[in-house]
Amino acid sequence: MSVNRSAAALIDAPRGLAGVVVTDTRIGDVRGVEGFYHYRQYSAVDLARTRAFEDVWHLLVHGELPDARQSAVFAAETAALRRLPDEVRAALPAMAAAGGRSGPLAGMRTALSLLGAAKGFRPVYDIDADRRRQDTLEAAAAVPTLLTALHRLGKGLEPVEPREDLSYAANYLYMLTGSVPTEQHTRAIEQYLISTIDHGFNASTFTARVIASTGADVAACLAGAVAALSGPLHGGAPSRALDTLDAIGTPDRIDSWVRQRVVAGERIMGFGHAIYRTEDPRSRLLREVSQGFGGPRVNFAVEVERHVEAILAELKPGRELHTNVEYYAGVVMELCGLPREMFTPTFAAARVVGWSANILEQAEDTKIIRPVARYVGPEAPAPVPATRHDGSRVPRP
Amino acid sequence: MSVNRSAAALIDAPRGLAGVVVTDTRIGDVRGVEGFYHYRQYSAVDLARTRAFEDVWHLLVHGELPDARQSAVFAAETAALRRLPDEVRAALPAMAAAGGRSGPLAGMRTALSLLGAAKGFRPVYDIDADRRRQDTLEAAAAVPTLLTALHRLGKGLEPVEPREDLSYAANYLYMLTGSVPTEQHTRAIEQYLISTIDHGFNASTFTARVIASTGADVAACLAGAVAALSGPLHGGAPSRALDTLDAIGTPDRIDSWVRQRVVAGERIMGFGHAIYRTEDPRSRLLREVSQGFGGPRVNFAVEVERHVEAILAELKPGRELHTNVEYYAGVVMELCGLPREMFTPTFAAARVVGWSANILEQAEDTKIIRPVARYVGPEAPAPVPATRHDGSRVPRP
Repeated sequence: MSVNRSAAALIDAPRGLAGVVVTDTRIGDVRGVEGFYHYRQYSAVDLARTRAFEDVWHLLVHGELPDARQSAVFAAETAALRRLPDEVRAALPAMAAAGGRSGPLAGMRTALSLLGAAKGFRPVYDIDADRRRQDTLEAAAAVPTLLTALHRLGKGLEPVEPREDLSYAANYLYMLTGSVPTEQHTRAIEQYLISTIDHGFNASTFTARVIASTGADVAACLAGAVAALSGPLHGGAPSRALDTLDAIGTPDRIDSWVRQRVVAGERIMGFGHAIYRTEDPRSRLLREVSQGFGGPRVNFAVEVERHVEAILAELKPGRELHTNVEYYAGVVMELCGLPREMFTPTFAAARVVGWSANILEQAEDTKIIRPVARYVGPEAPAPVPATRHDGSRVPRP
Repeated sequence: MSVNRSAAALIDAPRGLAGVVVTDTRIGDVRGVEGFYHYRQYSAVDLARTRAFEDVWHLLVHGELPDARQSAVFAAETAALRRLPDEVRAALPAMAAAGGRSGPLAGMRTALSLLGAAKGFRPVYDIDADRRRQDTLEAAAAVPTLLTALHRLGKGLEPVEPREDLSYAANYLYMLTGSVPTEQHTRAIEQYLISTIDHGFNASTFTARVIASTGADVAACLAGAVAALSGPLHGGAPSRALDTLDAIGTPDRIDSWVRQRVVAGERIMGFGHAIYRTEDPRSRLLREVSQGFGGPRVNFAVEVERHVEAILAELKPGRELHTNVEYYAGVVMELCGLPREMFTPTFAAARVVGWSANILEQAEDTKIIRPVARYVGPEAPAPVPATRHDGSRVPRP
């Protein structure tokens, strides 16, 4: 029950709570001016270059990087959690059919919600820190299984059962396609996944923390986070940047296509970021990953990037418009054979680890996150107009 | 992508954002000192006394009370939306089985999520206000059908199909039991439902608005709201107050039972409210509704209330501890034949209308709700410890 205690105690905040500090965190941060972001005390890009996804997952939820033995234990432990409970598996076809209409995140939201119930997740305030962490592992480990099963069912294909001997990244591609991926594909998607685990206090992360602050179970928090991620203002839609490449089509069309749009006041998808005043560090990493593959598509992407940045620098001087994470994320995922409708779900398969860390951190607090609203409608009470009422039947018009 | 723009621009807020105004609202308010709350400009208690649930629903989502013709049209329109899409119906047994472990709200969260996908709900920012309102009606009208079907399936019973000729309240009891309820039962549960539609800016309402502010679809917002409602800190668990009545058992035990607990520093469930400095206006309404039934259970509840208030006034002078909404809500629901595990879901069947109004109001704004966190961990970047990495296989411990 939350309400305004008294008008006097209210604190006015900027619209959308912009800049309002809602919590301290030890999970990470983004430094826009420097073009730098980090998980715990480590550069996220350095982690992506040198570590396995599972190691960074361990860093996020345990608070420290694993040593070699811990790394092996954690990888085996999470690999064993990939299989779905039977009742979840049985319900996936209905979700896949429905998901086709509202987008793949709707299916994932439903499936995660069901998974938590099937596993009997309990309120985070009713369990200890180890059990909470275990719940986040069980949910996150199952996310690739859920996503790929929903995708395949939607295409009329049988889901591919997870393999415990493959890494998180390799198993993800394997379950999607049915074939064990090459090391290059595995490592490329793994670097993408690591680079996307967390990025400041975004809206889905905030949602997960608000729900966690009520003490709800881990699946409740994650389902809410996926719900927020599905909103168009959240961002994270790497397929849009590829649409830009497709629309341009050939190098000779870059100049006219881009100028036309910029002059018309349209945004060029894949360019520009609200925070970074420099190149997006994720963009630099994923460009390098792309260039490791080479080929005409990558060369074209690099050429479009170079041209568009030059045109934007000319037409919008001083704005520092560079490619954002979406641009090369789309290129990398395409190189790894992911269909575009799986781009945002793949993002969720990484971000679920960031959400997990945030839920665990929030659960250490015991204060509900509950701001207030200010009533600005007509003065109350006004007299209720009288009406006949028969409470049991629907009146007919 | 949300991150701290610069350390200088950050605004420190009280823990849990207590007292921080996140938005203006025209939906309603709670005035704790006066013991008064309202929907739009009308006293919620007056509405409960004189109007049908559907009329108040209309008030919340259309902004005004319907006239007689509008009332009939709206009631018929929403009654026609009660039936579930086939693919949702097909998935309910799996949810009911799983829901038994995490509680009934987990099933409801999953089912609402699936319902929105099955109906092809689209992001609120991609559709107009009429379509958004229609989506909220489709979701809310189906909530009693989902809740009662999940409950019956969990008990091994067949779901009861909704009837369009019954009111929202009557149809809810009908689908739960399979029998058309008496007018007294219908009107009692209807008054409970109306009195519970909205109550300030609670955590589930805030969650719905955060998700709506990303532009996500109505089902995403509602699933998140249910997720937050399931948290133990949210409140709204009327069965706990009945547990108090049961624990006391007989009138002669009231005094010793209550004194023992108060002296031990325990809370007496069903008593006390964070905001109201007077009797909870919902409590007064629902006591009257209960007394309309009479009988030993009601008399016992009234006697316990009187004794406990007197003891609390003696042992905790000046604290103004009265029954809260949970107390007589539990009594009313028990009188109407609802099993205790359906008390909180029934609360959700009312609150979904309040969430709907809040989603619609939030969607008129286009600013994402996104506060920030302050990084307080070890200084970054620290060097990443080296490790061997084979990205494709799970290492064995």
